[in-house]
Amino acid sequence: MTVKSIPLRLDMRGDTRVENITARVQTALAGTGLKTGVVTVFVRHTTASVLIIEDEPGIRADTVALWDRLIPADPGWQHNVRNAGEDNAHSHLRAQMQGASVTIPFTDGALSLGAWQQLVVMDFDTRARTRELIVQVLGD
Amino acid sequence: MTVKSIPLRLDMRGDTRVENITARVQTALAGTGLKTGVVTVFVRHTTASVLIIEDEPGIRADTVALWDRLIPADPGWQHNVRNAGEDNAHSHLRAQMQGASVTIPFTDGALSLGAWQQLVVMDFDTRARTRELIVQVLGD
Amino acid sequence: MTVKSIPLRLDMRGDTRVENITARVQTALAGTGLKTGVVTVFVRHTTASVLIIEDEPGIRADTVALWDRLIPADPGWQHNVRNAGEDNAHSHLRAQMQGASVTIPFTDGALSLGAWQQLVVMDFDTRARTRELIVQVLGD
Repeated sequence: MTVKSIPLRLDMRGDTRVENITARVQTALAGTGLKTGVVTVFVRHTTASVLIIEDEPGIRADTVALWDRLIPADPGWQHNVRNAGEDNAHSHLRAQMQGASVTIPFTDGALSLGAWQQLVVMDFDTRARTRELIVQVLGD
Repeated sequence: MTVKSIPLRLDMRGDTRVENITARVQTALAGTGLKTGVVTVFVRHTTASVLIIEDEPGIRADTVALWDRLIPADPGWQHNVRNAGEDNAHSHLRAQMQGASVTIPFTDGALSLGAWQQLVVMDFDTRARTRELIVQVLGD
Repeated sequence: MTVKSIPLRLDMRGDTRVENITARVQTALAGTGLKTGVVTVFVRHTTASVLIIEDEPGIRADTVALWDRLIPADPGWQHNVRNAGEDNAHSHLRAQMQGASVTIPFTDGALSLGAWQQLVVMDFDTRARTRELIVQVLGD
């Protein structure tokens, strides 16, 4: 078995925007030449998440509405109160609950995603940032 | 190190029902003959999740009540509004937050679960479906 | 590729307290001598979680406030009603949503965490417990 590590960089705008990275991860996987194993896609930030969704405009809109209701932006969060200039406590809280990575099996060189499963990065921050990800592939 | 991939199929009824798959995953692991490594259990759908719970009737009931409160069914979700015939936006939103997979270490051929940890599939959809899972085992 | 399994034990006090385990996991990784792969950190309990946060006092305080609002302690949870002496239904519900493990890539013998990412255990239980974790390392 072999380990391959492929970095990805995304320019994102924050504000709970979604970037679909399914094709990029599949291309990274194909580049390894490995046929079976697992891929871990990991985002190296505390205000963005990697997750799996059915990626259509309704779900994107509902996801924004849901997070705005469950964990609203609020100047009163202690992260904002105690750290001058910070306004993104809600971004941290959303990202830590949603998670920084997903692990997906692959077989015959293809991600074993279901028909409607798409791999996305969700950026919860309040401003544009460049996001670094690692696609870590373990397999034969 | 070796990779083994074991498919599982479950007939589920939706409605935040729980299916305990601990024994099936342990049997799949035993069938590989591997002694130490990690198991990733992945569900290939966007309205169901794999997770670890203490599986007793109280927790099952509380989990349904919790999701009904945090992410209720609602015809007003955009996924339902924009896609004719869809009523399962809440199922998608619950599943994407809860996650499609778990990764569990194993040693001496047994899952390293704690005394009260059970591996379950939770089906958030609004109708019965057959669910495909993959048990991906990496180890020696 | 090799598998290494390192147990960790933590004495924790419950009540949504956070224990930062970044250094301990990095030390465990260094002890394996492996250079590239993935680390899965798994807690063997149903009322505690492993997660990644920016670990500063504001975020710690906000996380407690958030969980107290989203999933409050309540004698009325069925887990508490049906099981004599239990008062920790909310601990279970928080832990199962937050998750029992994280998987992190490593390269050159170091966890590929971003500048602000810290690995922590959050204990949602209502009393002090000793917590067992497993650091499972797969790599070359």
